[in-house]
Amino acid sequence: MTQTQNKNSYTLLELADKIGGKVDGDGSLVIHSAAPIESASTGEITFIANEKYLKHISNTHATAIILDDQVQAPNVAIIRHYNPYLAFAMVLDILYPDLPDVTTGVAQSTIVEDSTTIDSTSRIGELCHIRKGVTIGKESRLISSVYIGKNATIGDNCILYPGVRIMDDCKIGNNVIIHSSTVIGSDGFGFAESDTGLKKIKQIGNVIIEDNVEIGSNCSIDRGALGPTHIGMGTKIDNLVQIAHNVQIGRHSIIVAQVGISGSTKIGNGVILAGQVGVAGHLEIGDGVMAGGQSGVTKSIKSGTKVFGTPAREIMKSKRIEALLNRLPDMLKRIKKLEEK
Amino acid sequence: MTQTQNKNSYTLLELADKIGGKVDGDGSLVIHSAAPIESASTGEITFIANEKYLKHISNTHATAIILDDQVQAPNVAIIRHYNPYLAFAMVLDILYPDLPDVTTGVAQSTIVEDSTTIDSTSRIGELCHIRKGVTIGKESRLISSVYIGKNATIGDNCILYPGVRIMDDCKIGNNVIIHSSTVIGSDGFGFAESDTGLKKIKQIGNVIIEDNVEIGSNCSIDRGALGPTHIGMGTKIDNLVQIAHNVQIGRHSIIVAQVGISGSTKIGNGVILAGQVGVAGHLEIGDGVMAGGQSGVTKSIKSGTKVFGTPAREIMKSKRIEALLNRLPDMLKRIKKLEEK
Amino acid sequence: MTQTQNKNSYTLLELADKIGGKVDGDGSLVIHSAAPIESASTGEITFIANEKYLKHISNTHATAIILDDQVQAPNVAIIRHYNPYLAFAMVLDILYPDLPDVTTGVAQSTIVEDSTTIDSTSRIGELCHIRKGVTIGKESRLISSVYIGKNATIGDNCILYPGVRIMDDCKIGNNVIIHSSTVIGSDGFGFAESDTGLKKIKQIGNVIIEDNVEIGSNCSIDRGALGPTHIGMGTKIDNLVQIAHNVQIGRHSIIVAQVGISGSTKIGNGVILAGQVGVAGHLEIGDGVMAGGQSGVTKSIKSGTKVFGTPAREIMKSKRIEALLNRLPDMLKRIKKLEEK
Repeated sequence: MTQTQNKNSYTLLELADKIGGKVDGDGSLVIHSAAPIESASTGEITFIANEKYLKHISNTHATAIILDDQVQAPNVAIIRHYNPYLAFAMVLDILYPDLPDVTTGVAQSTIVEDSTTIDSTSRIGELCHIRKGVTIGKESRLISSVYIGKNATIGDNCILYPGVRIMDDCKIGNNVIIHSSTVIGSDGFGFAESDTGLKKIKQIGNVIIEDNVEIGSNCSIDRGALGPTHIGMGTKIDNLVQIAHNVQIGRHSIIVAQVGISGSTKIGNGVILAGQVGVAGHLEIGDGVMAGGQSGVTKSIKSGTKVFGTPAREIMKSKRIEALLNRLPDMLKRIKKLEEK
Repeated sequence: MTQTQNKNSYTLLELADKIGGKVDGDGSLVIHSAAPIESASTGEITFIANEKYLKHISNTHATAIILDDQVQAPNVAIIRHYNPYLAFAMVLDILYPDLPDVTTGVAQSTIVEDSTTIDSTSRIGELCHIRKGVTIGKESRLISSVYIGKNATIGDNCILYPGVRIMDDCKIGNNVIIHSSTVIGSDGFGFAESDTGLKKIKQIGNVIIEDNVEIGSNCSIDRGALGPTHIGMGTKIDNLVQIAHNVQIGRHSIIVAQVGISGSTKIGNGVILAGQVGVAGHLEIGDGVMAGGQSGVTKSIKSGTKVFGTPAREIMKSKRIEALLNRLPDMLKRIKKLEEK
Repeated sequence: MTQTQNKNSYTLLELADKIGGKVDGDGSLVIHSAAPIESASTGEITFIANEKYLKHISNTHATAIILDDQVQAPNVAIIRHYNPYLAFAMVLDILYPDLPDVTTGVAQSTIVEDSTTIDSTSRIGELCHIRKGVTIGKESRLISSVYIGKNATIGDNCILYPGVRIMDDCKIGNNVIIHSSTVIGSDGFGFAESDTGLKKIKQIGNVIIEDNVEIGSNCSIDRGALGPTHIGMGTKIDNLVQIAHNVQIGRHSIIVAQVGISGSTKIGNGVILAGQVGVAGHLEIGDGVMAGGQSGVTKSIKSGTKVFGTPAREIMKSKRIEALLNRLPDMLKRIKKLEEK
């Protein structure tokens, strides 16, 4: 890692102890950084992100690697852990403890309107605009150029990156991370037909985001038309995602980049929507549903179902059809042959 | 509606009179807020957004509901209106008349360059940047951190939300609403191949947006390469939409979230492009065309046609093919059986 | 071009000489602007962007047109050039030489933290925020409201449009153009499952963007989890594009609007991904690959291959299947007929 010269260092034994792992090798080795398996060198710890990278184990120059009990690695010290990916996440937090840097207090170029309640432990960076009636909890950080609309609330330990816009009346829980240029609470897309064209339906709801949610950059999460748009605890949303008015997303769901969810649809707990999935409006997507990349979901889906395709079908059915599409030329030939007889 | 404690209240009769409806029930009932049918309570008015919600009529605790002449609602006062959705839109405007709050004049932290013409009734919020030669009409509101490029013009009664960027020379009509982080007039994507790589084609056109257009958050509407990109009167554009250089969109069209329209394509009047639709370049999409979600439009489409799929087909044809895809396994079996005979 | 009253003018001969072309007609004619073929008038030069526009040649009121040796144009003066599109790009640079306007130096409303190195020839516009340790090279322009994170570096001759956010430690080469509201270096989307929900994997990599890259508006390019996300020299990226952590894109590739590329995928040189393409993670896309609009790439692709569809197939195969889909109703009929016999 050339880009981050790290100042923290630990022995392998110290790291293993902190994360509940076990050293397999020399526990006195010193680790100061983490790096990808292909480029790691002395003093660095690494892991295997994906089976495809197993081939690199024998060649790595890392000092240590985190593995489960199954995988062997003869030339490198190992921290054994039942969940190596989680263990690596914990190691990163130990080696790289810094949060995004903002000076304590409110930066001088920031505009704070009347009647706000900003905890003194929160840090409001440069060029922000905090409107009337806003509440910001403890130890939250607004990095730069963040807009918080009237009467919005931000919980404790939140990180709002440059250019985040939270519109009026929205409620952000604790430990929420929102990346740059994401907009929370823009108007939902609602219009009534009239003789003179499309008449705007005033969007008087808000957005409620529960604790431990992370939202990527350039996302749009619209306020409800009436009542809230709701993102449940621990749900993670990637970049450039569209969440329409009055959508409800449950807990611990994963919404990958460029997904679009139409108005009033309910997404359950532990759902995974892969990249570029589209979900129509007024549907119910049950707990644990998984939708493959680019799927177009046009109907409600029962809990635990995996779907793929546009329109989305149960995944085995979808794969069967995909396979048969490849056989279409052959099928046509066989029909011709039968006709000739 | 807990999030918006509303101070306006009207009798049902007053509301009905204002919107050209007729009370069916006790016209003296007092209405102070609007709410979704499932959660509405005393003093609240509601409506039916979608047939799926008809089942809630018998259980609603709303004081009143807006319905057409057909639907019955024994337990709740009714405003009858030939277009309940439009009526509800009008009721919302009456109950919630406030526009986004900005102090009159130009905020102190905003930078205004020389040679601008800003009507004294317009409100320019904090941390905006208004470049040379800009004109802003009457009663427009720039909420916060809005950028208006050189010689751009903004009409009357516009609302530009935080982080909107209007680039040089673009022209925005009257009553235009643009949501946060949308960019109007970024360069079109044009490059010529050369021996040394891709050579940028300087984009010297602009963007013209007619009256009564609304544009969602995080949209990109590119300036023309030569001449304008043009959005016609009353057209509504959702979030995260891409409109390439020299696209022309007619009047009263609806462009749903995450749609992408490629360069120089002409979209007619009253067109509806559902979410995540992609339209190739240099096409003509006739008036009243409807394209289903995620459709990939690769050819010009005649007025009044409904299409679906990638590549987009006329919708009945597309549905027929969809149905036959489900029968592919059966077709293959039948071919095998015939062959065995 | 009404929107840009241009002050530069040249004779046709001067223009032809500067771009290595040859006048076919009266070289003394004066050209002051460029315009589309349909609307060009006296003093304006035009070109043919697309075969569809050839029909306009006989009617154009342009004073001159740029063509190759093949195309005839009896009523208008011609500059002949072997690559008319490239020639037109060069003519535009001559007629419209201005770069986006920013006053020299650092604007007064801009915040510059300690320990930065900003070349005195660069221009930092209003309301920017330049963090500690940033380096900015020669003749670069930050138009307005640009954020440059800690220890990031910006090369020479870059243009960063309003609202661009470059996060900590990212490295931007020379001659790079980045359009409004694009975010470079937001966190990659990485989480490990744990008993208490999804645990964030700290993203400690960065983004490296080589020389001559252009990136559209509202793009998200995530920092690497470990090590960099990398965009190669001369690659051009359109609007609303998602590039996930640790993606590597080669040189001179073209990534059209709303494309999404998943984590750790390697894209070769000279690749073209058309609009709304999605590429899964951990794939290798070879040099010169072309993927048609909305394709969903689920497997690695060999150099020089053209693909289309979801899942993406080799294009001839994909077209054959498309054609057969149209024949499915006929195939079913023929099976029925055979069965009746």
